[in-house]
Amino acid sequence: MQALKEAQKPLGTGTPTSIFAANLDVEYVISFRYANAGQPAQTGDSSTPEEQLEKLLHTLDLAGLRTVVRDGGNGTLLIFTRIRSEKKLLGEIYRSRVRDWLHGIRPAAPEKETQLSLEKEPLTDGERLRLVYSLITLPSSEGGAGITPKQGEWNLVESVFGLHDHEFNKRWLKDWSTKWLIGPEDLRVIRDRFGEKIAFYFAFIQWYFIALSVPAAIGLFSYLFLPAYSSFFAICNCLWSVLFVEYWKRQEVDLAVQWGVRHCSTVQRKRAEFQFEAEATDPVTGEKIRYFPAYRRLMRQLIQVPFALFAASCLAAIIASVFSIEIFLVEVYNGPLKMILKFLPTVLLSIFIPIVSTIFTTFATRLTDFENYENQDSYEAALTQKIFVLNFITGYFPLFLTAFVYVPFGEILVPYLDVLNVTVQHFGHDEKYTTSDTGFQINPSRLKAQMIYFVVTAQVVGFVLETILPQVKRIVFKKAKEFDSKRKGIDMQTVMDPPEEKKFLDRVRHEAELEVYDVTVDLREMCMQFGYLTLFSPIWPVTALSFLINNLVEIRGDAAKICMEMQRPVPNRADSIGPWLHNLSFLTWLGSISSAALVYMFSSAELEGGPPKDLTLYGLLLSVLLSEHVYFGARFVASYAMSKIQSMGLETERKEKYMVRKRYLEESFGAENELIRQEDEKTGGEYTGVGVVPSAKDGRPLADGDVSETFWRSQSGWKDSVDAGVQIMDIVRGKEKKTQ
Amino acid sequence: MQALKEAQKPLGTGTPTSIFAANLDVEYVISFRYANAGQPAQTGDSSTPEEQLEKLLHTLDLAGLRTVVRDGGNGTLLIFTRIRSEKKLLGEIYRSRVRDWLHGIRPAAPEKETQLSLEKEPLTDGERLRLVYSLITLPSSEGGAGITPKQGEWNLVESVFGLHDHEFNKRWLKDWSTKWLIGPEDLRVIRDRFGEKIAFYFAFIQWYFIALSVPAAIGLFSYLFLPAYSSFFAICNCLWSVLFVEYWKRQEVDLAVQWGVRHCSTVQRKRAEFQFEAEATDPVTGEKIRYFPAYRRLMRQLIQVPFALFAASCLAAIIASVFSIEIFLVEVYNGPLKMILKFLPTVLLSIFIPIVSTIFTTFATRLTDFENYENQDSYEAALTQKIFVLNFITGYFPLFLTAFVYVPFGEILVPYLDVLNVTVQHFGHDEKYTTSDTGFQINPSRLKAQMIYFVVTAQVVGFVLETILPQVKRIVFKKAKEFDSKRKGIDMQTVMDPPEEKKFLDRVRHEAELEVYDVTVDLREMCMQFGYLTLFSPIWPVTALSFLINNLVEIRGDAAKICMEMQRPVPNRADSIGPWLHNLSFLTWLGSISSAALVYMFSSAELEGGPPKDLTLYGLLLSVLLSEHVYFGARFVASYAMSKIQSMGLETERKEKYMVRKRYLEESFGAENELIRQEDEKTGGEYTGVGVVPSAKDGRPLADGDVSETFWRSQSGWKDSVDAGVQIMDIVRGKEKKTQ
Repeated sequence: MQALKEAQKPLGTGTPTSIFAANLDVEYVISFRYANAGQPAQTGDSSTPEEQLEKLLHTLDLAGLRTVVRDGGNGTLLIFTRIRSEKKLLGEIYRSRVRDWLHGIRPAAPEKETQLSLEKEPLTDGERLRLVYSLITLPSSEGGAGITPKQGEWNLVESVFGLHDHEFNKRWLKDWSTKWLIGPEDLRVIRDRFGEKIAFYFAFIQWYFIALSVPAAIGLFSYLFLPAYSSFFAICNCLWSVLFVEYWKRQEVDLAVQWGVRHCSTVQRKRAEFQFEAEATDPVTGEKIRYFPAYRRLMRQLIQVPFALFAASCLAAIIASVFSIEIFLVEVYNGPLKMILKFLPTVLLSIFIPIVSTIFTTFATRLTDFENYENQDSYEAALTQKIFVLNFITGYFPLFLTAFVYVPFGEILVPYLDVLNVTVQHFGHDEKYTTSDTGFQINPSRLKAQMIYFVVTAQVVGFVLETILPQVKRIVFKKAKEFDSKRKGIDMQTVMDPPEEKKFLDRVRHEAELEVYDVTVDLREMCMQFGYLTLFSPIWPVTALSFLINNLVEIRGDAAKICMEMQRPVPNRADSIGPWLHNLSFLTWLGSISSAALVYMFSSAELEGGPPKDLTLYGLLLSVLLSEHVYFGARFVASYAMSKIQSMGLETERKEKYMVRKRYLEESFGAENELIRQEDEKTGGEYTGVGVVPSAKDGRPLADGDVSETFWRSQSGWKDSVDAGVQIMDIVRGKEKKTQ
Repeated sequence: MQALKEAQKPLGTGTPTSIFAANLDVEYVISFRYANAGQPAQTGDSSTPEEQLEKLLHTLDLAGLRTVVRDGGNGTLLIFTRIRSEKKLLGEIYRSRVRDWLHGIRPAAPEKETQLSLEKEPLTDGERLRLVYSLITLPSSEGGAGITPKQGEWNLVESVFGLHDHEFNKRWLKDWSTKWLIGPEDLRVIRDRFGEKIAFYFAFIQWYFIALSVPAAIGLFSYLFLPAYSSFFAICNCLWSVLFVEYWKRQEVDLAVQWGVRHCSTVQRKRAEFQFEAEATDPVTGEKIRYFPAYRRLMRQLIQVPFALFAASCLAAIIASVFSIEIFLVEVYNGPLKMILKFLPTVLLSIFIPIVSTIFTTFATRLTDFENYENQDSYEAALTQKIFVLNFITGYFPLFLTAFVYVPFGEILVPYLDVLNVTVQHFGHDEKYTTSDTGFQINPSRLKAQMIYFVVTAQVVGFVLETILPQVKRIVFKKAKEFDSKRKGIDMQTVMDPPEEKKFLDRVRHEAELEVYDVTVDLREMCMQFGYLTLFSPIWPVTALSFLINNLVEIRGDAAKICMEMQRPVPNRADSIGPWLHNLSFLTWLGSISSAALVYMFSSAELEGGPPKDLTLYGLLLSVLLSEHVYFGARFVASYAMSKIQSMGLETERKEKYMVRKRYLEESFGAENELIRQEDEKTGGEYTGVGVVPSAKDGRPLADGDVSETFWRSQSGWKDSVDAGVQIMDIVRGKEKKTQ
């Protein structure tokens, strides 16, 4: 931990752990491809690589960046950039902080004197890298260099990436591998290094990990002591999921405030790809605004409905048919080659599903591009939603199929699979190869087996694929390249490396080949996992427990992935886990329905997972209806309670706002008192009514000014009024006395 | 309209229509009771009325108000107040506008030079009155006089009220009585006079009135051409209600922005009654904060659950029993006195319901007091919710009873009402007084008749009660008082009236006796009306039409009520119709369920409203489940679409914000460029690296500074980098050439 404490010392204190030390003060490296496999690369326009390089370097220079060029090996150049001067950096910091203030991200304006404000809130590596990155990538209209890798005029720019701080990474992994829980301190370190967006992912998975212990405990208990599909467990599980999501919402706010990024999503990162329809000049601001009518986007978005339906049904169809083939082969068919044929379905699935989903994913991306979003966040959100639909089908449909079609209706439906007999006929012209219809029994263990597959096997496989496979892939590719270039006879020896930089440059070349880390992928993984928990855990109550164990590893695995297999991620800001939040609540809602259905259907079956006994449709509907509305109620109550109980984050925010408010109010108060003082001086502090002479300013009409004046002057000062009042009382009382 | 245009000319232009002209520049009148029926009034503490009067006047003076005292008649004094001086007023305006800015209500800070800012945004009568009112009522800690009528130290202060502007009122009523639609211009006038809260009510009822035309048309159509309980109408009606609410939400935002009150609910009006538990000093702000733990309030709020249940079931029980008595008397019993007995239930209801609901209302108020809210809005919201529950039962339960109990189960249940026979037995010892069980037929017209009663009769009666009755009541009371005082022999002649003020003072005395206008009552009425539409209109499709006609009158009626029967309302701000919004969406939701149920049940009956034929429980459940989820879907889509389509209000807000942002950014931009310039001067504009000499500030470690330096100096300036790059390319290409 000591080491980490070190690591997050602000830049201002110049600790040797600052990444920029190890990396020769390089902030970003731009990889520029001038040749593929020996052929000079094609630039977008007719210009040569040399020309584009020159343009690139010049643009960077204009944006206030220093550059050094080195050979990147096999047809690329590495352009090392850093901000030109400390003053320039300070200017950037100040401007960005002012912008934040104006967007209401920070309560108070930064000190006008930058040095001062820097001492107050030191610059983190994350903030620095973010600023420089935006300096490189923002369009020139926003004061950046407008470098958009692989696009348009910059099609030769392969990537823009920061350099890892290996010392820090080592310490980080070591530290996390030796502790159970990740504390706010650790999250802060992540945030300082890799930005809030990634920090939010770790915060989420950490909270999820902790929260899992509850359903894990309950699950284990009901697994050991309660009957299968106990409604007690289902209810607990559902309520837990509600609380989990609602409480996370609050944590998000707290963290966002703590990290000073609340509302930061309002500062939009413009998309370079945005196609504006018309460039109108805004009547109010007089600015050129790039305009794309919202209703047209809405129209385009409508396309995704048929798309989603089509994609979903396609995937569903594939899964269903493979599923029925499997059923047939495993449980009906018992002809020759059964041993081999049994594996056919698995093979089919693992061939088709990836292909089809890749196709749909690319299509979804196209569609999202077509929807033409103006800024990054809404683009990502839109894409996420589409991907989520696909994942939903591939991830959950098989279980739905088994639970709600195969088990209840299996005995009716399965016999119809005998249409496949025709194929079987070829082996032999008697019926012995298929069990007779009457003989068929649905396989009760199937549902649970499938669940276990998704919850344990798939998770482990997934983990292996995402952590080990890339390593292997990269090594193989490397070898291949080397071999290839050997064949071509080019030695990998890169040119013009100053000897003392050799080690450094090699490291950079290595990092240049790494993949770009996309945090949403990991978030999706967690979200899908959460889905199994809410939708199906009654099938296998220890689901949560297995996830608990899985995630303990997952967290460290992701950390390692970022450190070793990915380029250093650009520290983006975020004030939430974004669109996934909606998906989480969606899953809790669906969970309330599906688990109710599961419990109602299967708790009646006499052998676990077996065909349900004496079901009634209205029974099913009632239980679903009931549990859904209980869910709505619970969610309402939970969110209300959350909103009422003081949130630390909002509290601090409120107070900071208050401090600003107070300061300003005192100022204006002072001004106001001043006015009064002058006023009183003028009138000698007496109520001569001078201050109230009718005037255009005061808007008191001159017409009946005199009446009004006499009225008000009739009692000059409060003492007169008191006398008048007392007098009236006495007179009236007097009268009354008389009458009594 | 011309006249109205006049009316809303800003104060700054000193038009003679400014209210303060007609009212001798009086802003507020405080009615102070020094004696009830001749006996000196009891002050809270042992002080005499004289003392409290003196204290009052002194406090007002300290708060910067001028006062004049006149006799109010029968034991009261009228204390006329106005702000002491124009300067003081300007100070108040400026301060409040700064506060608004700091709360993010206004995008830009007001001009420091108050006069300037006044010319930019002139002062409306509404704003002026609001400021003065807060000056009178705010606690001294907030810079007010802290006058809380009828409470604690100010128990003799009866009321604080503004004076009507009769010229304006006349013009207003005349104008509205001659036009069909109330335009934004008119709303603006209301807002300038009576504040945003009331303006929002009129905006709402106006939008509701316009929107009603749609279901009215559809309703009429399906009434004429479609079978009763047509699902077509029900669906249209449900979708309409969704769109109505969602679109209103957006209008609220637009209006709030247009009126410059967006987020104004964040500026909390503190409640004088708030009981703080501990007065801690805030660690951050160092302010004294009056603290009441949220969880304890939450605990207290939980009490309302049993309360609501109890109250609801009480009312329900009363209604149900009276209902069954009615059924019995009207449809079962046919003994003597039937003609008279028939009216018994109506009598019972109109006796019991008011009494019971008054009891519960008072209890609800107590409960809300006990919940001890810190500010006005949350208090009102909490009370509103409780009242809504009560109204919900009294308003809708009878129809639910008829529709879902009487009609479907009537034939089974009604016979059991014969337990009442025992009472009947006394009339004669044979069975002829009751129809035999078998003979009983439920009355199909009953449901519709009841609906028509609630939708037409009740509305009309209500209108009469709220507009004509008060008038009568007041006149009667007046007469009674006069008579009373005559008996006592006190002539109503009030003392010390300057003759030229006589007319004015009489008017004020009259207004002093008027009631205080509470806009939430009118809002509740509309909300309940909307409920009938969403919940039951399939019973009688022309419901919307009748409401349309009713509201045409209602709007004018309310205007008249404000002008003639109520004290001039204090112009409060609001950025929404508040808690009623939730109730509206709640009603739309419930509507989706109940109308689905109605349609499913009654569309099957062969005689309209008759007992439904061949129902199935799952059929009912399915239709409800379906329609509810269609509702959720529709609402989601609607709100999404609304959020995407440009909202005028948000647009303007965004732009104004942008303007501020731009101004600031340019400033800081300037500063930054300045820095750069200096920097370049220092370095002679060249990359001598002076600017990057390792320094503690910059956080670059001195340790390997030299390596880094050599690295960066290896290419000084972008041209060098270009050369280096080109060189590398050539070399590499050269090599490749060789090998090929």
